[in-house]
Amino acid sequence: MQLEKSIIDEANHKQQAAHQRKFDFVAADINGLDTIIQKISDFNIAIPSWALGTGGTRFGRFSGGGEPRSLEEKIEDVGLIHALNKSSNSISLHIPWDIPKNAASIKALAAQLGLHFDAVNSNTFQDQPDQQYSYKYGSLHHVDKAVRKQAVEHNIEVINYGIELDSKALSVWLSDGSNFPGQLNMRGAFERTLESLHEIYDALPADWKVWIEYKPYEPNFYSTTIGDWGQSYLLASKLGKKAQTLVDLGHHLGSTNIEQIVSLLLMEGKLAGFHFNDSKYGDDDLTVGSINPYQLFLIFNELVEGMDARGLNHATGIGWMIDASHNIKDPIEDLLQSVEAIKIAYAQALLVDQPALVQAQQNNDVVLAQEILQHAYRTDVRPLLAEARLRSGGALNPLAIYRQQTIRKQLIEERGALAVSTGL
Amino acid sequence: MQLEKSIIDEANHKQQAAHQRKFDFVAADINGLDTIIQKISDFNIAIPSWALGTGGTRFGRFSGGGEPRSLEEKIEDVGLIHALNKSSNSISLHIPWDIPKNAASIKALAAQLGLHFDAVNSNTFQDQPDQQYSYKYGSLHHVDKAVRKQAVEHNIEVINYGIELDSKALSVWLSDGSNFPGQLNMRGAFERTLESLHEIYDALPADWKVWIEYKPYEPNFYSTTIGDWGQSYLLASKLGKKAQTLVDLGHHLGSTNIEQIVSLLLMEGKLAGFHFNDSKYGDDDLTVGSINPYQLFLIFNELVEGMDARGLNHATGIGWMIDASHNIKDPIEDLLQSVEAIKIAYAQALLVDQPALVQAQQNNDVVLAQEILQHAYRTDVRPLLAEARLRSGGALNPLAIYRQQTIRKQLIEERGALAVSTGL
Amino acid sequence: MQLEKSIIDEANHKQQAAHQRKFDFVAADINGLDTIIQKISDFNIAIPSWALGTGGTRFGRFSGGGEPRSLEEKIEDVGLIHALNKSSNSISLHIPWDIPKNAASIKALAAQLGLHFDAVNSNTFQDQPDQQYSYKYGSLHHVDKAVRKQAVEHNIEVINYGIELDSKALSVWLSDGSNFPGQLNMRGAFERTLESLHEIYDALPADWKVWIEYKPYEPNFYSTTIGDWGQSYLLASKLGKKAQTLVDLGHHLGSTNIEQIVSLLLMEGKLAGFHFNDSKYGDDDLTVGSINPYQLFLIFNELVEGMDARGLNHATGIGWMIDASHNIKDPIEDLLQSVEAIKIAYAQALLVDQPALVQAQQNNDVVLAQEILQHAYRTDVRPLLAEARLRSGGALNPLAIYRQQTIRKQLIEERGALAVSTGL
Amino acid sequence: MQLEKSIIDEANHKQQAAHQRKFDFVAADINGLDTIIQKISDFNIAIPSWALGTGGTRFGRFSGGGEPRSLEEKIEDVGLIHALNKSSNSISLHIPWDIPKNAASIKALAAQLGLHFDAVNSNTFQDQPDQQYSYKYGSLHHVDKAVRKQAVEHNIEVINYGIELDSKALSVWLSDGSNFPGQLNMRGAFERTLESLHEIYDALPADWKVWIEYKPYEPNFYSTTIGDWGQSYLLASKLGKKAQTLVDLGHHLGSTNIEQIVSLLLMEGKLAGFHFNDSKYGDDDLTVGSINPYQLFLIFNELVEGMDARGLNHATGIGWMIDASHNIKDPIEDLLQSVEAIKIAYAQALLVDQPALVQAQQNNDVVLAQEILQHAYRTDVRPLLAEARLRSGGALNPLAIYRQQTIRKQLIEERGALAVSTGL
Repeated sequence: MQLEKSIIDEANHKQQAAHQRKFDFVAADINGLDTIIQKISDFNIAIPSWALGTGGTRFGRFSGGGEPRSLEEKIEDVGLIHALNKSSNSISLHIPWDIPKNAASIKALAAQLGLHFDAVNSNTFQDQPDQQYSYKYGSLHHVDKAVRKQAVEHNIEVINYGIELDSKALSVWLSDGSNFPGQLNMRGAFERTLESLHEIYDALPADWKVWIEYKPYEPNFYSTTIGDWGQSYLLASKLGKKAQTLVDLGHHLGSTNIEQIVSLLLMEGKLAGFHFNDSKYGDDDLTVGSINPYQLFLIFNELVEGMDARGLNHATGIGWMIDASHNIKDPIEDLLQSVEAIKIAYAQALLVDQPALVQAQQNNDVVLAQEILQHAYRTDVRPLLAEARLRSGGALNPLAIYRQQTIRKQLIEERGALAVSTGL
Repeated sequence: MQLEKSIIDEANHKQQAAHQRKFDFVAADINGLDTIIQKISDFNIAIPSWALGTGGTRFGRFSGGGEPRSLEEKIEDVGLIHALNKSSNSISLHIPWDIPKNAASIKALAAQLGLHFDAVNSNTFQDQPDQQYSYKYGSLHHVDKAVRKQAVEHNIEVINYGIELDSKALSVWLSDGSNFPGQLNMRGAFERTLESLHEIYDALPADWKVWIEYKPYEPNFYSTTIGDWGQSYLLASKLGKKAQTLVDLGHHLGSTNIEQIVSLLLMEGKLAGFHFNDSKYGDDDLTVGSINPYQLFLIFNELVEGMDARGLNHATGIGWMIDASHNIKDPIEDLLQSVEAIKIAYAQALLVDQPALVQAQQNNDVVLAQEILQHAYRTDVRPLLAEARLRSGGALNPLAIYRQQTIRKQLIEERGALAVSTGL
Repeated sequence: MQLEKSIIDEANHKQQAAHQRKFDFVAADINGLDTIIQKISDFNIAIPSWALGTGGTRFGRFSGGGEPRSLEEKIEDVGLIHALNKSSNSISLHIPWDIPKNAASIKALAAQLGLHFDAVNSNTFQDQPDQQYSYKYGSLHHVDKAVRKQAVEHNIEVINYGIELDSKALSVWLSDGSNFPGQLNMRGAFERTLESLHEIYDALPADWKVWIEYKPYEPNFYSTTIGDWGQSYLLASKLGKKAQTLVDLGHHLGSTNIEQIVSLLLMEGKLAGFHFNDSKYGDDDLTVGSINPYQLFLIFNELVEGMDARGLNHATGIGWMIDASHNIKDPIEDLLQSVEAIKIAYAQALLVDQPALVQAQQNNDVVLAQEILQHAYRTDVRPLLAEARLRSGGALNPLAIYRQQTIRKQLIEERGALAVSTGL
Repeated sequence: MQLEKSIIDEANHKQQAAHQRKFDFVAADINGLDTIIQKISDFNIAIPSWALGTGGTRFGRFSGGGEPRSLEEKIEDVGLIHALNKSSNSISLHIPWDIPKNAASIKALAAQLGLHFDAVNSNTFQDQPDQQYSYKYGSLHHVDKAVRKQAVEHNIEVINYGIELDSKALSVWLSDGSNFPGQLNMRGAFERTLESLHEIYDALPADWKVWIEYKPYEPNFYSTTIGDWGQSYLLASKLGKKAQTLVDLGHHLGSTNIEQIVSLLLMEGKLAGFHFNDSKYGDDDLTVGSINPYQLFLIFNELVEGMDARGLNHATGIGWMIDASHNIKDPIEDLLQSVEAIKIAYAQALLVDQPALVQAQQNNDVVLAQEILQHAYRTDVRPLLAEARLRSGGALNPLAIYRQQTIRKQLIEERGALAVSTGL
């Protein structure tokens, strides 16, 4: 299903006066207002195809209903989100869950909804029914050359699907690791991984990147072969300029200073982009901003400062994607909340008085530096986001329209209450 | 399949001389040797029915093969383990995965293998196909009285199955919690849980216990309604004498001093028993003793001292069970390794020179206290375990016989390579 | 030194128009505005006497300057803070650092500044020069009865000082614990602690409380005898109605759900109060709200809801105190920032639409529940705090006045650049 | 004081028979026994000069007595340790605590005790009384060039002291970091640190190394400029071949897989060496092996395998040092326990059947790989260590002799009960 523009316009019209009052209030104190609104408008976050269905844990999964049954329906769901928030203009596909049988028609469908294709994702953390070798003991790091070869070929196949869709990056998350001490020679595993990645790297088109994700644990619980940013960076620097490190917010040990990692990867030209989510314990994959929104702001503060220092375009300089799991929320609502939280953090970071901050840092005025950051963070920037949506043709209040239009109910009617999307 | 005693005897015979040399060496320094061997012999650890199949994570599951297809086959697998190690004389069932259709014949099968039935486990963390209400938002803590009633009735049904099998305890692990701030009124959730548990408690036979497990997170990632020992203790103390707290080693935040919790629960008469496993990050459910065997020893040191102080029989005073997940190991081999690790820790704890330790503590002689503990821990007690097995009719080296007899191969031939056991 | 009211009035006058615009904007959407402003006004946070000097770590301490050299000067510093923010109307003393030689004159000085005396704190974590027995191996839990007696008598002495100052609570933080496995029998340590606390409890006046703090580690690194809320609760429940549990935000293992603990302690009538600070790693004692302000808001959300449910007055129902360490910031500036962060969280919690939240919880509408919380949190409530200060005679912008008046410079001139306050 | 050889010989004589029985038992199963004994003998662990006094925390310090009052007395204490265990043949000095006024006589004293000088340590985490600029806001990363210059010059001065003593490495632990978000531009801090280290690097003699330590937090509690292995590695790789990464076991976030870091640093030729200690929570600086001895073994398993793969001599290929804090134990006893624990782990690692392990890894035989590791770990290797000491002229039981000879009592008589050593 698609949402008619007139519905959005009508809803916006009713809220216009209330919005204007709020916007005028916050706008009054902002220098360069239009530039900031434009930056907020330009900032889009890709939706991964697997985030449109209900997620679960090893203990079970409680299905929602009306989940997309095909790649086309996934694209339609992203189209709905984008129509509402004008902030999610791309989708990130996962192979083999989303093999585009007819790339041309898939691209046409996406284009009609204002969408394009973000990074394509390979999967060597699960066995597929028709697969010759098992990934039980790893893929790109496997001790058996034949298994590695199969995994390399899968990645190259994913690149080829991506080329058809005008994607420009391969995103590699490797679950390879070990559950027990002794299981693995960790040096050997690293060296084999590097060798495999080299083969994949060599298959990349000239204008592509490979994004190397890291994660300390889960599904392996003793070691992970690409376990932290240092290991990902080491691989990326050995591979070459097309290889960079992807940061997933949930993929860190407790208390890790993620913003420092972001700052240093930007410094080294090795920050590929982000997988956004939030967490309290491990890789909880919760709605972005639902647990620690200040940390998200601090990360964006580093991003804005660091990207500006390198002359990178905020919207396109690196990759932005949500990677969350919707175990108990309607996936579309969850994604709307996540996008909102990301853009709030971004807008707050844009409000940081950078010259004053630099001066406070130069003076070691720690109190003032904190005041400067917290002034931006404590500002209620939601009217700025609403205005940016309004100017782009989106909804002042996306979630309200989604609910008023009973979209989930319609999707269930269309797709069934038991429709289960591919994913975790 | 069952293992003939003659095979074990024959294998033992070949290893007898080597064993005797090692046993004599370690035995020479032990006071009260026979008592210690007897205690080691008497010490059995229950096997949960769900641990006989391959485990997995939310990212996937890599099946082994030859997994038990029925309750009878699960009992047979525990029979195999027990025949080899003479240390696993009971099985803990899980309802609805293990509903005993004919209790009499199930009991007869178990008895024939020297087994009885440990605590029975209820399951309200998953929805069953025929179930009226969903547990998506909890069970015993649910805001809807009808859902709570359904969950209470399920627990009472589990008690009834247990009565038929001469089980004496109901083990309750409640996944109820919340994924997001605001989702739940945590006080209300606690009070409703208490109310529900009261109804279950009232249905317990006079000689039964209810064991209340706690866990900080997973599958819920913001709050868990019975989240730590204090919360379980609070419930158990409000319920009455038949309610106690169950400790699962993996159910703690990082760095928790578990042995202190054990010591205090014993002090209060509220320690129900253990679910053994090991972990490096979260509830990793790895083989017992594979990550931090010294911690396991320290826990047993508290157990031996604390149970002796209360006059509790080590073997039967509280409940002992493995609760691990075998994602990449043969489940039977994994369980043999876990039982060995548990009994090594127990034997080492028995070797602690308690009077000397008490004296060192009284003198604040920290160095000596550590020496006393580490002397016991550094002692190679494996020959004591082997001797205990030998005297009980088990194998000097259980794992070696299991492999030499190619038992997994036989199980695969019998049950198929794709047999999948119920469980996670 | 003291700050003349005219200085504050003058500064406020200049900022009045800008403030009024902001206040009018936020006030327009608030029901029961005056009640909320009044609650914010009434809410005061005690300042501990030891927080007025520079803090440090085991690696060193970098002194600021102009630190208070006496109890009188500490009271003056709190007077300065309170004059500015009208939110810190009490001071919490620590014995033996703050022995009031002349209680009457001390009380008179405090009263003149609008201050009274919050809980008094004992210290058995350090040895004093004239002390007979050492606390190297603990105090209330010590194996030697004579050491315990000395520690009990010290606590009773502290109560007596508190009585003279009209304090109404004894705050006990016990560092007792062990650094190595085996050092301590943890059950015995707990039992001796309970015995010692009983003796202190018996010395409490009828209208007093004893607040029992817990902490998992530091300065002991293996076990702490009152290590978590469960252990503190167990002691408090055995002692009686005058004993309650004190929550220090930094005294938890990583990822602990502190708000759940708060909710349950309130339910049991056992929440004594708070020591506020913030942290990223351990007991970092950073400025409140500098690391995770959303967590602080979630805690206040539980407090407001839970105190209302019990009919407790927000301002006086439990104890509120800062306990932070100012290693690199001017202590007074740091305290002003902390108080502001606490009151922001409190004000945001007051804005939560509780009836709507209850309804969303009843419907398991997780998305809406989050929206309700985050709407309150994202509201910029600073104008409400400013208005409350204005109505109480404080400063619209306390920190700005503190800096414009170069108060630290004056304190250094008065007390010297090398003045070192008692404390850590 | 010094320990006469005859005392050791006499004690050994009495224990000889008991030792021989144990040694013969364990030796019977070891291939290449003499090589292994020789490796154990050759393996020495340096003692840092600051570890000879009582340590403390920010909450206080409980002095022992008889602490060394001078560099000479520190060397004598190491001499005592080495006389007993023949495993600590070097001392690591710290400037400015240990400035050698007369290098020749200091070297002569050390040589007489069989000692030499390990890495020299600089200190820019504290201010010294005569220092022009403060390190309150950092040293090598400071925003002020003058402060950086002072810190660089201090490091060069330390190198010069080291040259006089035939030391061959400068060990740099940088506490530079920030306590609050915004305080620091983290990229700038990194770049300035690199610049400063370059200046120090350029002052290194050709046969020297600079060891760059990392630590995630404490004394700074938001960011540390060299916070993890990746950051240290990045600096070391930019600096050149003489720069390497130093691993302190306590300097990791909870659950970090340290052995993987060790394996990769060895792979890259960037592992400088170790600071040994143990911990349960943070940088607890407890006795080595007192909390998690299996982790220590796993680290040594990587070291032995990885150093053999690169042809590095175990004893001299990288640096080995204890860095612990003795808050409640006699420092000398604590060090004896630590050295014993390190060498136990090393000996166990030498016993790992590497060819069998390689084969098991090649077969993905996870169960067998674990059996191989745990067989080595469960072996009681203490008789091998005793034999190595015996052959080197040390004591079969160092701690027993230390106590029987009442050495601490003599040191207190000689140096006083209130002697306080420099250090933390």
